[in-house]
Amino acid sequence: MPRLRPAAADGAEEAPRLSIRLDLGGGRRIGPGKVRLLEEIGRNGSISGAGRALRMSYRRAWELVEALNQAVGRPVVETATGGARGGGARLTPAGETVIRHYRAIEAESNRVAAGRLGELSGLRPG
Amino acid sequence: MPRLRPAAADGAEEAPRLSIRLDLGGGRRIGPGKVRLLEEIGRNGSISGAGRALRMSYRRAWELVEALNQAVGRPVVETATGGARGGGARLTPAGETVIRHYRAIEAESNRVAAGRLGELSGLRPG
Repeated sequence: MPRLRPAAADGAEEAPRLSIRLDLGGGRRIGPGKVRLLEEIGRNGSISGAGRALRMSYRRAWELVEALNQAVGRPVVETATGGARGGGARLTPAGETVIRHYRAIEAESNRVAAGRLGELSGLRPG
Repeated sequence: MPRLRPAAADGAEEAPRLSIRLDLGGGRRIGPGKVRLLEEIGRNGSISGAGRALRMSYRRAWELVEALNQAVGRPVVETATGGARGGGARLTPAGETVIRHYRAIEAESNRVAAGRLGELSGLRPG
């Protein structure tokens, strides 16, 4: 095994971390982009506003919401009347559940991975 | 919270799982594609053979190996003399370490995520 040393204590260097993607089977996938969009819809109260905040087209934002609905098997966002662009939007309980579980899995996975991530990050020429 | 029920016990449906990507900071990323390639190089004893097994061009396989060298800060593969395509290749200790840590992180993360993944997978219309 190569000699390991801790990663450089360089303030400019981010800490190593894990990013995750949930695969619920049958092509139903939930990754960081969809979860960020859901969170932004919750904050923003609008799909178009959330899309703008994430520099995403309105069409793309709707496609991701639709993909999430399919992944979860229930609507994750509820739109108010007033037309597609006119009304507001808010998360459904299923949408809240997706965010909560995704972020918890992310935090727990990072916790169990921290030691090994640090070792990999510290693999440098001896 | 929506009513939860277990995912359909349909044999054709894969179990929900987590896929992971390691971000070591400074753009140094290790995901499932690079790790599968390393494993295949270990089995195959050749970068070109591993690339063929994964339906990947020789050039693409080398690019991924180079990206891994950069990510880890050490060579992950050692090539025998005999020219770029001629000689064999084998994993270095650093290469073995990458596989070992990646697969362990993947297994441990899936273990801690299993309950929540099952719940998300079971979100269905009540």
